[in-house]
Amino acid sequence: MRITFVGSGAIGSLFGGLLKKGGSDVLLIGRQDHVRSIKRNGLTISGIEKFTINIDASTNPLDAEDSDLIVITTKAYDTKKALLDVVPILTNNIKVMSLQNGVGNIEEISKYVEDHNVLGSVTSMGALLEAPGKVQFRGKGTTFVGELSKEGKYAKKISNIFNNAGIKTQFTNDIFCEIWSKAIINSAINPIASIFDNKNGILLDENLLKIVREVTNEGRTILQKDGINIPNDIFEKTLEVINNTSNNINSTLSDLRNGNKTEIDYISGKIVEVGHKLGLPTSYNKTLFDMIKYKENILLKS
Amino acid sequence: MRITFVGSGAIGSLFGGLLKKGGSDVLLIGRQDHVRSIKRNGLTISGIEKFTINIDASTNPLDAEDSDLIVITTKAYDTKKALLDVVPILTNNIKVMSLQNGVGNIEEISKYVEDHNVLGSVTSMGALLEAPGKVQFRGKGTTFVGELSKEGKYAKKISNIFNNAGIKTQFTNDIFCEIWSKAIINSAINPIASIFDNKNGILLDENLLKIVREVTNEGRTILQKDGINIPNDIFEKTLEVINNTSNNINSTLSDLRNGNKTEIDYISGKIVEVGHKLGLPTSYNKTLFDMIKYKENILLKS
Repeated sequence: MRITFVGSGAIGSLFGGLLKKGGSDVLLIGRQDHVRSIKRNGLTISGIEKFTINIDASTNPLDAEDSDLIVITTKAYDTKKALLDVVPILTNNIKVMSLQNGVGNIEEISKYVEDHNVLGSVTSMGALLEAPGKVQFRGKGTTFVGELSKEGKYAKKISNIFNNAGIKTQFTNDIFCEIWSKAIINSAINPIASIFDNKNGILLDENLLKIVREVTNEGRTILQKDGINIPNDIFEKTLEVINNTSNNINSTLSDLRNGNKTEIDYISGKIVEVGHKLGLPTSYNKTLFDMIKYKENILLKS
Repeated sequence: MRITFVGSGAIGSLFGGLLKKGGSDVLLIGRQDHVRSIKRNGLTISGIEKFTINIDASTNPLDAEDSDLIVITTKAYDTKKALLDVVPILTNNIKVMSLQNGVGNIEEISKYVEDHNVLGSVTSMGALLEAPGKVQFRGKGTTFVGELSKEGKYAKKISNIFNNAGIKTQFTNDIFCEIWSKAIINSAINPIASIFDNKNGILLDENLLKIVREVTNEGRTILQKDGINIPNDIFEKTLEVINNTSNNINSTLSDLRNGNKTEIDYISGKIVEVGHKLGLPTSYNKTLFDMIKYKENILLKS
């Protein structure tokens, strides 16, 4: 099976490297400097696992044409662009899977790909692109894979391949539950730690934890009302993630520090959107969202 | 008329200096270094008006005994202490007036002083204690004076004395409306500008203004329900204050920068308290309150 990662930054390259090491046929499509370095020196993984591996890499999305599975690993705001790049080579035999942050990626994919070919996944693996060709494997966690159609045959197959490559993966027949649960967890952690420009661990402060509780409860209420099966103990799950990632800089803060656009529109922004649709209070999410938009805008203006 | 300012920092010394210059008999009770400097070199006002004036000063609250009016100008969390300091010399002829930030000062005074002797005031004059004996007059604005008993004879007299000294003052028969309105305005400006460690002017950013609108509307809804006559256009009034003070560092941020306890318990904290009492949503105020408490606690711990 040939697996192509489109938008191979930290996460795409980490998964690709692990899968290649596990015996899969992998292609990474990414930016020029990253691809050039991989072609010259191989892909180097450091951190939790350490190895260097030769792996196909290209800057041209059309090179994905022989793939069985295309995994989209771009930022959420680039999903559409990634899809348009590969649309010309899509066939009825190619599956397309989102492995991204935030909400709305599967929906975007399904505009271009037939439902039975659409997969979604959510991971708590952590990775950092240290330099072109060099990825830090920063956090180990479960990955969930599911299908839009909920049938699951192909998603189970992917789970097996991932597991065999040492990527702890679980099949789910409710990928939207996983995606939204992660979004709710991130809607608390990412903005608050970013507002105070600090590691996730600062959220363990008693005052900030009060906000974490309120914002996750608000998100849970909204999404449950919208028919998504959010666990009632989402606050406790968030607390667990904070504890497990207390020394990490979250992706929103990392984007802000690097002067990049954040994915907050696809995290807090989506929760606020659903809340508005249902006429439910969104105060906590909205406050945090507006604060991040403020930070983002001063960066993008400067 | 002898007027004594208890807790003479920036505001107390500014008012005292202006009143003394206008012909009143004034005593400033304050901290040792400030009092020593005033005794040695007089009180120096700079900024909007510039003058140096000789003025009575003491560190001993009992020296207030010949006063007709005692004005409390401590931080809100020190009101009780200030009252206990002057209780021994209070008589039925001495009026006590709060000239402070936040909510609850008049209520605290009325525990020790009979209602007909209690006055309250609110000012938008801005002052900064630059060094012992030296006060910067930073912002000119209206001061409101009223009585707890709502009769107003004495409050009108005070207003006249203040006006004659060039302190633009208005009598009000609803001092609680003025105090709570200022608290609502400050509940938006102070925390948000403090969270981002910046001048009040940053609130003019379109994203932060959304939060200003929500937090002031939330405060208005709560206080109106509690029977306080908050103007419906409190958001617009807040906007006016932001524009007029865009280059200022607010008192909460100034406290945080100096490593001091803030008065946020008496601003956002009081609004949340009333909201809880009435079972109304307090999300916006609570979020901002918890964020300031976080900042305050890491300072006080360090």
